[in-house]
Amino acid sequence: MLNSFDFEKYKYKYENEKGSDLREEFGLLQRKLKEFGIPVIILIDGWESAGKGYVINDLVREVNNKYTKVHVIDAMTDEEKAKPFLWRFWERIPAKGDIAVFDRSFYYDIMDNYKISDKKFKTYLEELETIERQLTDDGTLILKFFLNITQKTQAERIDSYKKDEFKKVLVGDRDLRQRADYDKYKQHFNDVLEKTNFKGSKWHLVPSESMKKASYEVLGISIDIIKKTIFKYMESGSISEPYSIEFPKSEKIIENLDYSKYLTREEYEKEKKKLEGSLASLGYEFHKKKIPTIIIFEGVDAAGKGGAIKRLTKCFDPRGYDVVPISAPTELENSYNYMWRFWNVIPPKGRMVIFDRSWYGRVLVERIESFASEFEWKRAYREINETEKLLKKSGVLVLKFFLAIDSKEQLKRFNERLLDLGKEYKLTSEDWRNREKWDLYIEAYDDMLARTSTDHTPWIVIPGNDKYYARIRVMKEMLKRGREFIDSLKDANSF
Amino acid sequence: MLNSFDFEKYKYKYENEKGSDLREEFGLLQRKLKEFGIPVIILIDGWESAGKGYVINDLVREVNNKYTKVHVIDAMTDEEKAKPFLWRFWERIPAKGDIAVFDRSFYYDIMDNYKISDKKFKTYLEELETIERQLTDDGTLILKFFLNITQKTQAERIDSYKKDEFKKVLVGDRDLRQRADYDKYKQHFNDVLEKTNFKGSKWHLVPSESMKKASYEVLGISIDIIKKTIFKYMESGSISEPYSIEFPKSEKIIENLDYSKYLTREEYEKEKKKLEGSLASLGYEFHKKKIPTIIIFEGVDAAGKGGAIKRLTKCFDPRGYDVVPISAPTELENSYNYMWRFWNVIPPKGRMVIFDRSWYGRVLVERIESFASEFEWKRAYREINETEKLLKKSGVLVLKFFLAIDSKEQLKRFNERLLDLGKEYKLTSEDWRNREKWDLYIEAYDDMLARTSTDHTPWIVIPGNDKYYARIRVMKEMLKRGREFIDSLKDANSF
Repeated sequence: MLNSFDFEKYKYKYENEKGSDLREEFGLLQRKLKEFGIPVIILIDGWESAGKGYVINDLVREVNNKYTKVHVIDAMTDEEKAKPFLWRFWERIPAKGDIAVFDRSFYYDIMDNYKISDKKFKTYLEELETIERQLTDDGTLILKFFLNITQKTQAERIDSYKKDEFKKVLVGDRDLRQRADYDKYKQHFNDVLEKTNFKGSKWHLVPSESMKKASYEVLGISIDIIKKTIFKYMESGSISEPYSIEFPKSEKIIENLDYSKYLTREEYEKEKKKLEGSLASLGYEFHKKKIPTIIIFEGVDAAGKGGAIKRLTKCFDPRGYDVVPISAPTELENSYNYMWRFWNVIPPKGRMVIFDRSWYGRVLVERIESFASEFEWKRAYREINETEKLLKKSGVLVLKFFLAIDSKEQLKRFNERLLDLGKEYKLTSEDWRNREKWDLYIEAYDDMLARTSTDHTPWIVIPGNDKYYARIRVMKEMLKRGREFIDSLKDANSF
Repeated sequence: MLNSFDFEKYKYKYENEKGSDLREEFGLLQRKLKEFGIPVIILIDGWESAGKGYVINDLVREVNNKYTKVHVIDAMTDEEKAKPFLWRFWERIPAKGDIAVFDRSFYYDIMDNYKISDKKFKTYLEELETIERQLTDDGTLILKFFLNITQKTQAERIDSYKKDEFKKVLVGDRDLRQRADYDKYKQHFNDVLEKTNFKGSKWHLVPSESMKKASYEVLGISIDIIKKTIFKYMESGSISEPYSIEFPKSEKIIENLDYSKYLTREEYEKEKKKLEGSLASLGYEFHKKKIPTIIIFEGVDAAGKGGAIKRLTKCFDPRGYDVVPISAPTELENSYNYMWRFWNVIPPKGRMVIFDRSWYGRVLVERIESFASEFEWKRAYREINETEKLLKKSGVLVLKFFLAIDSKEQLKRFNERLLDLGKEYKLTSEDWRNREKWDLYIEAYDDMLARTSTDHTPWIVIPGNDKYYARIRVMKEMLKRGREFIDSLKDANSF
């Protein structure tokens, strides 16, 4: 069916149902979704004037507004333009048990542009596949509908709207463009639909010659699939299809670092002064060139992340960066896909976000404490790589610092903190608990470094037994890679 | 001191302190603020090139980034332009125990415009006084600093920045304008500072000829005041100054409504069909004219709010409105001023937000269940009136519907719900508990109607024993007042 816009082939399955029954059943199912915490995304796409508004109106009439949101995707706002293009969708993904209805969606741009270059098209497809897979793997149900109308119908509707004193506001460039180039768009839509008909999130092509029939169809199909999904959930406790993920054994990176490196106080002060000036200039240049930056700090407890961050930020204008310490997710954050809270703090153009711990928690603490299932944390390596690649492609500079210290040094620092009243608040019983799991953490760190050190975002691993050495290394690497990024900018027109 | 920019008069109090000590003490005090849940707002304002960045950098160097945020206020984004001008500040108020540092603030616009008309000036002052009083009354500590420099110093700094390859990006129109008209700005600043030197949030005028001295001064003054505040809190359990608020006894409105009004099924269907068409047109017109709308529904349990909302929204394009049901605040919402969660959902231009229950919860359930102190809920009448006035002035249409039923009718509906499996989920034990407090609620409702039915946002009180009558009344009033608002638009250039 999908590879054809042939209306004859379509068999309506719900045209004889009673609308109020369908709407009510949909409303009742929503309470079940809430009960089981299943998030649902419903994308309503299609031709202009195909009746998306009508269909959505019918869809949400009997639902609980508290758990349903209709999102209208339109041309980007300033704020949205300053972020990666998927940002505004991650912002809007539904919480567990909620329904998010999108009037147009991730497909807004690609659908509207049939002259899109193959390269850009490929990139889009890749990113669309990524977000839909990440969400469905994580247990989100995605329903995609495309409302289809003939050229004749579209022309008639556009004309009647134009004549209507009020509805004429509904007629925009997109309508006129599609009307003028119906066939080209038809071919393009067909192409997009086929190529984005993903295993976990397939399209439903619904003829909308009669908006009423179309809305019954959308309600009916949604009801059937949601029911199946709920049954599946009741059977297996999950709606996603876990698949096995295997990795080669990672070699030991952390224990083989050279921890003997150090700087004398004098060397440290001298280097620091020099670097502070250059980093300040770099900061201004990033601001001037409107470069968004994400700097991630990971490392064992007491490795000196905080100190390194402080020395680094001291060089920058505090109005240009945010330091975001990541600890256990809040109840709210937990009700979303784990990446959601990070998308919420993605920097706009010209700003810098420094993460003290990050999304890597998924493959570290969440793995070790079993907050994440094996399928979840094993999946996460790829999801994180994809996300960082996407950020890089959107023009974000992503730097990842891993600070390592050996076990002896950590114990030394814990004891120091224990005795220093000014610092004792930094030491919690959790630190000691983590220390008991030292070997597990080192294994998780080695796996992380092996599986997420990519060409586009490699890890910068720094042995930190000597704080002076570590801090200077961080500042030097920041400077070096910042400069390299600026030099590379000529190529990056993607942002 | 405030009514003079005379530098001679200023005595530095902290110039001989050690910077690192001041920063560390500020950092330690922050942990105390967190412990006691005291939110702090620090506004850093002043001349361009006065060293705001330098001062802020020093201020936040030793704080915990998790509880401190630096906000840079600049020209408005699309999103901000589409909202009342105070929105972006309400969005950024600190949670309990957090510190929000503003580089420029609510004063951004008024400071920059010395040609401002007296009328607009007065409006600004009124709104600035409002937000600062509402926040300080609610226990937020507000520190306001103005960094002052001489014409000579400003000129020199601007020149040196201009010459600096990187810092030249810091020089903008504002700098040049101030440099050109230093004296006019000086007079204007003086005027603004005097008029906004509010009892609960006074200005500190700090000479910034030496940025270092200025930053010590800001740190020192902040430390002293925060200490005093914490002591006060430890003594009295609050940092705000409760004042007594008296109201005349409200007359009985609700029990004197005429509950006998009704419509027959036929009348209802006929009226409904007619109104649906006109309301749909109104909706398009609101969209076309980019009018933001807030519709509030309050009423006793089972008064029919949900049904009335459903009948109303059915007429509108679901892509143009959001229904926001308000229930108990989440943990996150509770960590902010009670108005924060509502500012978060203020509609942008052209959108409609329908509240099923609203900020009036403050003077209803929160009053009756003692979730709010007497000082809090008594204050709220004024705070709510101010907020609604501000919204009105920003071009938002605010409609408030109160649906009333009498006690007998409520019992009837509870029993119906009890027996109707499709509706029983609507009836909770809380509904029964509330019913026992019927008289308390009626008193609170009467007080609310008496104290918050203003000229700019009057209450529309509807006796709802007959659902048909109530729903039609809601639709009629919506249509009538919507049309009136459109007609009145010629005058509203404030938005």
